[in-house]
Amino acid sequence: MPQIAFGARVRKSPFFERTMAAGASHFTVYNHMYMPVSYGNPLAEYWRLVEGVSMWDVAVERQVEVAGTDAEKLTRYLTTRELKSLEPGQGRYVPICDHNGALINDPVLLPLDGNRFWFSIADSDMKHWAGGVALAGGYDVSVREPDVSPLAIQGPKARNLAEDLFGSWIGELKYFGFREAELQGIPLIVARSGWSKQGGYELYLRDSAKGGALWDIVAEAGQPYDIGPGAPNYIERLESGLVSVGADTDEIADPFEMGLGKFVHLDRQDGFAGKEALGEIAQRGRARRFTGLHIEGTPLDASSQHRWQLNLDGEPAGFISAAAFSPRARGGSGGNIGVGLVKTELAEPGQRLQCESESGMRDIIVAELPFDLSHSP
Amino acid sequence: MPQIAFGARVRKSPFFERTMAAGASHFTVYNHMYMPVSYGNPLAEYWRLVEGVSMWDVAVERQVEVAGTDAEKLTRYLTTRELKSLEPGQGRYVPICDHNGALINDPVLLPLDGNRFWFSIADSDMKHWAGGVALAGGYDVSVREPDVSPLAIQGPKARNLAEDLFGSWIGELKYFGFREAELQGIPLIVARSGWSKQGGYELYLRDSAKGGALWDIVAEAGQPYDIGPGAPNYIERLESGLVSVGADTDEIADPFEMGLGKFVHLDRQDGFAGKEALGEIAQRGRARRFTGLHIEGTPLDASSQHRWQLNLDGEPAGFISAAAFSPRARGGSGGNIGVGLVKTELAEPGQRLQCESESGMRDIIVAELPFDLSHSP
Repeated sequence: MPQIAFGARVRKSPFFERTMAAGASHFTVYNHMYMPVSYGNPLAEYWRLVEGVSMWDVAVERQVEVAGTDAEKLTRYLTTRELKSLEPGQGRYVPICDHNGALINDPVLLPLDGNRFWFSIADSDMKHWAGGVALAGGYDVSVREPDVSPLAIQGPKARNLAEDLFGSWIGELKYFGFREAELQGIPLIVARSGWSKQGGYELYLRDSAKGGALWDIVAEAGQPYDIGPGAPNYIERLESGLVSVGADTDEIADPFEMGLGKFVHLDRQDGFAGKEALGEIAQRGRARRFTGLHIEGTPLDASSQHRWQLNLDGEPAGFISAAAFSPRARGGSGGNIGVGLVKTELAEPGQRLQCESESGMRDIIVAELPFDLSHSP
Repeated sequence: MPQIAFGARVRKSPFFERTMAAGASHFTVYNHMYMPVSYGNPLAEYWRLVEGVSMWDVAVERQVEVAGTDAEKLTRYLTTRELKSLEPGQGRYVPICDHNGALINDPVLLPLDGNRFWFSIADSDMKHWAGGVALAGGYDVSVREPDVSPLAIQGPKARNLAEDLFGSWIGELKYFGFREAELQGIPLIVARSGWSKQGGYELYLRDSAKGGALWDIVAEAGQPYDIGPGAPNYIERLESGLVSVGADTDEIADPFEMGLGKFVHLDRQDGFAGKEALGEIAQRGRARRFTGLHIEGTPLDASSQHRWQLNLDGEPAGFISAAAFSPRARGGSGGNIGVGLVKTELAEPGQRLQCESESGMRDIIVAELPFDLSHSP
């Protein structure tokens, strides 16, 4: 298999040396930064996440900071949600759409104070989207990427570890809540968040010179919980039905299709990016639906490498954006699962479809998201 | 060395299967797409480019299409250059700056007609920058990425090959000139362009289903010239002093620093993105200069993996953004060369500096770009 080319154009995470030392075996690039996605044993990494605690270099979750007099105004304009309160210390999931209503990012918004907001972004240059809107719209703000790099701890034992590291106030954080903290002089923001449904925290490192030190402290403190390195997990995210913008979305996918309609507030009094187009889409009804898919046949021996076209009796029905073998599916006997965009009229649970996979034609059964792992389709 | 992770989030080029079959050994990611950067023999690939003809999968040079009533107006606003004529069929190199005057991309602009323009971009989401400006500025345009994927042929024998493929009109193309063409029914735009100074052409494939067919036609027609696969070449681009936005630039690098001042027309009557900030920078004078650097000591055995800090007697002097061993440097005896941003007062050819490389402290001598390969520093 081809190697990743390490060079000067793509940035290295502050945790890069530690992830290499820990045996990172596969990398991707996300927000112009190298990201380890495997340490050579995908199943062990999966079980560590769903039964214990895993530590992830997610420095690629870059922050776009919007600051200044018009920061709140621009922040509200960029998001489809009506944010009635913007309480500092409480994060919010905020889909971002372009002029056509297409979903272009789905950050977590961190209100630091009334004039300063971080968008913790998925893989697209929201700095340029926000910057272009700010420039042409005449907003009095600065838009920049600060020196902030999250390290995630995820899994059912993450809370114990976080309490050991920071104290009992960890228990007071609501979901997406965050607080400033320090670990042996390392400046952090600690948030109850992370790209899994197993629970956990993200330690937003605020000084990239201290990445190695932070990694070592967390690895050491995690010993009693048998912590180990991992990465946003391909299998678990499918089970949980987490949207991966860019993977699951195409150029026209809108938030209604992606199951994020509850975050689109068309009854807002103020305008927001994409409002008009989204209003039209809402009237028309969504053309497709993001849904779970059981994939019949022999276990997939690797995650899917590209989109698989879905069809019903030869007619196009949509596509599977990601697929893998879940050891917990079908009540623990295991099964192939996937997610994808399916024509609305064919997206009812139980609907049977076919797809052309990398290992030939397969039968498909539509399922609700998140997957009910306790029973067979 | 770690492998590249192939997955559904990052796109595959229409030439992907062919590059794998041709032995692509290293990949990076550029504009959310996998890009082969080596086929396992860097020196052979270098000599093929500078003495023969090489074929490159540069589908990652994505096109941002701006089309509609206000397309010309928006195109002019986005670029620092005054484009007196925008003649269809003649491309132009057009730096793009943000509100702060920082260089955020340096595309080639292809005017298709009076209402439709392609920006053939470097690695940042110019679709979002242009889209944000268009939305907030109320421009009547569509901004999208069309199905267009360039395949480059580069090197001194590229012209012969292009004439064999397309006919003698190839000789009529000026630099960055382009024309619509077909090869066995495959729709193309053929441009005299490419990211090397060895001469060559880019075949903009306009139907991604036909990538394999195009690759095969070019590989077959190139046999008499001993064509082989390659990629934008790390060594040759250093010799030639080509700017790589993202690698050579940091968040604040401006076009004056990067040696692109001649493309910034502050005396334009109309406004453009970054004009005010660039006016201030021009008055202040540039703080740094992008320059060549001879690197003393033993030959580098691989290209640099990150930025090397430059200093003079322990005081910071700038950074080297990329470095490698050039077999043609020093009159053909070979030598290490690099490029970087150096404090203006220390950027005079002949200035001696030091740097901390991956293989220890090294002496540095500033040089003009492009490098004069015929003599030693």
